[in-house]
Amino acid sequence: MAKYTIVFVRHGESEWNQQNLFCGWHDADLSETGLAEAKNAGTMLKEKGYTFDIAFTSLLKRAIKTLYFVQDELDLHWIPVVRHWRLNERHYGALQGLNKSETAEKYGEAQVKIWRRSYDTPPPALEKSDKRWSANEVKYGSIDESVVPPCECLKDTVIRALPFWHDAIVPAMKAGKRVIVSAHGNSLRAIVKYLDNIPDSEIPELNIPTGIPLVYELDENLKPIKHYYLADEAQVKAAMEKVANQGKAKK
Amino acid sequence: MAKYTIVFVRHGESEWNQQNLFCGWHDADLSETGLAEAKNAGTMLKEKGYTFDIAFTSLLKRAIKTLYFVQDELDLHWIPVVRHWRLNERHYGALQGLNKSETAEKYGEAQVKIWRRSYDTPPPALEKSDKRWSANEVKYGSIDESVVPPCECLKDTVIRALPFWHDAIVPAMKAGKRVIVSAHGNSLRAIVKYLDNIPDSEIPELNIPTGIPLVYELDENLKPIKHYYLADEAQVKAAMEKVANQGKAKK
Repeated sequence: MAKYTIVFVRHGESEWNQQNLFCGWHDADLSETGLAEAKNAGTMLKEKGYTFDIAFTSLLKRAIKTLYFVQDELDLHWIPVVRHWRLNERHYGALQGLNKSETAEKYGEAQVKIWRRSYDTPPPALEKSDKRWSANEVKYGSIDESVVPPCECLKDTVIRALPFWHDAIVPAMKAGKRVIVSAHGNSLRAIVKYLDNIPDSEIPELNIPTGIPLVYELDENLKPIKHYYLADEAQVKAAMEKVANQGKAKK
Repeated sequence: MAKYTIVFVRHGESEWNQQNLFCGWHDADLSETGLAEAKNAGTMLKEKGYTFDIAFTSLLKRAIKTLYFVQDELDLHWIPVVRHWRLNERHYGALQGLNKSETAEKYGEAQVKIWRRSYDTPPPALEKSDKRWSANEVKYGSIDESVVPPCECLKDTVIRALPFWHDAIVPAMKAGKRVIVSAHGNSLRAIVKYLDNIPDSEIPELNIPTGIPLVYELDENLKPIKHYYLADEAQVKAAMEKVANQGKAKK
């Protein structure tokens, strides 16, 4: 029997998803579709009777807003919400703001697939002089500049996300709290990779769909017993394919 | 010169304000008007160039949502938000859910004015057996039942709100953080009474309008130098009168 149950939600579509731009730490807002996805995630959780004692999210508004609309559906405005940069999306370095299709046309789909999906090859780094340099943003002002990434491969995201899993999320679960995490494709893949011990060679093909709550049941040692989405298989498959098809050159 | 600047916002109109019901710890939602007031408070702050490092609010959604829409206007989704029951509205005891005008017709305007405005005469208490008993709500489940009030006069609200002022809000200011507090008519009156050392006999006539940011500038000893609303005098006066006129019997 599961000792712990935790729910992960990947934020709904952002305005930059919609425009097919590499987003990363850029603080894009939810699109109208993303907002509807967020509300729908809340409705799915409500229908299944889920409730929570604490929520964790990133410093990026697309995840925070998704959480807010989930809270609104669940009438859980009052629960503590812990925001942390370690749950941010993977930092896309110098690709942030570039169009995915145009980048694929310029560098080839194979190169873009490596940048998007390779476990340990990072995309080109941002320079400190670049106006997109993240450490210049007020929201990262309390962090040592040396830990603000200039770019990240998924391996980097795993390394920076797991301390927050171990130091904040696990203690909350161990204290008996029902936890929801609203985050991003890659920070969630980082956690799921760790939980399910997914090999580096297999993680590139794992896609987490947006706006569909993903439930993990864990045993007393925090090992997964099972996981499932709160949607039927066809919905999940369609949503996963949508994610996988981003970053292909336009035909 | 001011050493500290803090901004208070009283939540916009709730659905129960609109229906002229005593609300207290009942978790009424914002009305459409209240939602517009919240956004407008955000716009006023944005126009004047305000920004914040941390926010404090109550466990009641009308204050939390007001804060959310202020954050949305200021693009400050990412700042920490501390929710605490000590910033809740005054507990209205057995009056919660009753119509203000009908209560005035039944008990007389004088009695209702005492219940609404007396500093130290509480309204009738809720019984533990009452379905409205606050300690039964999940959101107060982590609090010792003995500190969950059965009713409060403003004096009671002052006594329970000030520990949060001293232990959470002041330390944040002293750590150099720019603070916004989104709360309620009476929890804000409690803080303002303390800051300005307003006599018990004068506090009944102080009305704080909804949705208009109230700025306090404090010296190095946290004593007020001055305070002002981010709206012109006529707007503030009209909003104060609206509050003062609640609880009169309908003519």
